[in-house]
Amino acid sequence: MRSKHQISSLFLTIFLLLILGCNTSPLRKSIRSRHPCKEMVFYFHDIIYNGKNSKNATSAIVGAPAWGNHTILANQNHFGNVVVFDDPITLDNNLHSPPVGRAQGFYIYDKKEIYTAWLGFSFVFNSTAHKGSINFAGADPLMNKTRDISVIGGTGDFFMTRGVATIMTDSFEGEVYFRLRVDIKLYECW
Amino acid sequence: MRSKHQISSLFLTIFLLLILGCNTSPLRKSIRSRHPCKEMVFYFHDIIYNGKNSKNATSAIVGAPAWGNHTILANQNHFGNVVVFDDPITLDNNLHSPPVGRAQGFYIYDKKEIYTAWLGFSFVFNSTAHKGSINFAGADPLMNKTRDISVIGGTGDFFMTRGVATIMTDSFEGEVYFRLRVDIKLYECW
Amino acid sequence: MRSKHQISSLFLTIFLLLILGCNTSPLRKSIRSRHPCKEMVFYFHDIIYNGKNSKNATSAIVGAPAWGNHTILANQNHFGNVVVFDDPITLDNNLHSPPVGRAQGFYIYDKKEIYTAWLGFSFVFNSTAHKGSINFAGADPLMNKTRDISVIGGTGDFFMTRGVATIMTDSFEGEVYFRLRVDIKLYECW
Repeated sequence: MRSKHQISSLFLTIFLLLILGCNTSPLRKSIRSRHPCKEMVFYFHDIIYNGKNSKNATSAIVGAPAWGNHTILANQNHFGNVVVFDDPITLDNNLHSPPVGRAQGFYIYDKKEIYTAWLGFSFVFNSTAHKGSINFAGADPLMNKTRDISVIGGTGDFFMTRGVATIMTDSFEGEVYFRLRVDIKLYECW
Repeated sequence: MRSKHQISSLFLTIFLLLILGCNTSPLRKSIRSRHPCKEMVFYFHDIIYNGKNSKNATSAIVGAPAWGNHTILANQNHFGNVVVFDDPITLDNNLHSPPVGRAQGFYIYDKKEIYTAWLGFSFVFNSTAHKGSINFAGADPLMNKTRDISVIGGTGDFFMTRGVATIMTDSFEGEVYFRLRVDIKLYECW
Repeated sequence: MRSKHQISSLFLTIFLLLILGCNTSPLRKSIRSRHPCKEMVFYFHDIIYNGKNSKNATSAIVGAPAWGNHTILANQNHFGNVVVFDDPITLDNNLHSPPVGRAQGFYIYDKKEIYTAWLGFSFVFNSTAHKGSINFAGADPLMNKTRDISVIGGTGDFFMTRGVATIMTDSFEGEVYFRLRVDIKLYECW
């Protein structure tokens, strides 16, 4: 009987050690999983400067190939155009909804044969719902219905996060306005 | 004898718990190790637009300092030139090999005294071998034989990956063509 | 007594297994924690080319909106200006201190109403103290006293690192010179 009792207490001790041992590993406070630890959907709205809309424009051409200029997107599928943007982020697909943050950064059209782009930008939040930023980078083959870019980091509420953002073109009006839907899935949360 | 038997079964139980305990941690499905979880070698080929080669060019100058233009790389080691590219990726060093993907993004020459660059780009794959993208960023002191940049994320087959890419200039012909060899070592695989 | 002895040795075995079990996980050689695994403070110094200071300038305007040029930062809070830099990094706030590395990359002014920027750059070290690079990306709302950007990767001594860098404008002289203090906190070290 004594030995049984000893075994039981030993079992408990080891069990506690096991749990402690796993919990005191450096991982304790961060989550890292195939299942998203956070999911969010946002829209952002881009109105490119065309020489006439300086009041409403949220973006501007700042780089162009030798055959282009800074007022009209270049031919050859805008290859070489660099665009800087400060676009409102909304919770629904309405440009006039109250913005919950700003999408700030740049995109570069990078193929002559079809429209594709490369994106480097941040979602910057400063509301009661979210404070901090999410940083994105990646290729945007924008003729595809959905395309994935990387969430490469974050700050504030999104401290150290990583994930994947799926982008969909929700609207495209001529060459002045487009709206993107962004489904953010974070797989590393701290 | 009984106690021995009990100890044995206890041992087994604990052993199973230990294995279970470690495996059910959020890390289970991702690998994170000093030893690469994936290694790949690719080449990509850049032919810069010089005003005469619009048919073959895969890249174009889209930004330049005050003393430069968009047809010829600027003096002072091209400091300030921004180049957008859509370069074919091949498995060997032959420009005419069938491309397995596209390297898309930009580089910026960023030093007056010697050639150095900053890179932001993606490898975009859509073949039977690979689907998805790998995103890169980092400094390229291109006079060094090898230089390391960061793999900052990935999508598709390269979901959430991180790593280091070692770049070597494999060929350099005048100021129009260069070929880079990229040794990708991924240390985080999901 | 025998059983006790057996229990003791069993205990030892399991304890060793537990420690081994946790240590042989893929995480063994990397640290990942809410508490910084490395902290560093640096300053870097940016002198923008204005048409007259080519000798001292460390950066240059290489992109501008339709209403700008490449010698003077554009009005509307420099919205759309792209600047490439190769700035000295120092350990204190003195421009003339011996540089310990170079900050290389670009920033983009990205808002019409106030000064904000988007940064993509690297700290490149090649000294006895540090060899390798740290790569950064993120939004810089530069009117805030402090703002956080992401450390998205590293090479050499900073292999695979991630973290957050807090930026402070330490000095701002007209539109030609500024100095940033960068407090780097790394939360993933390998």
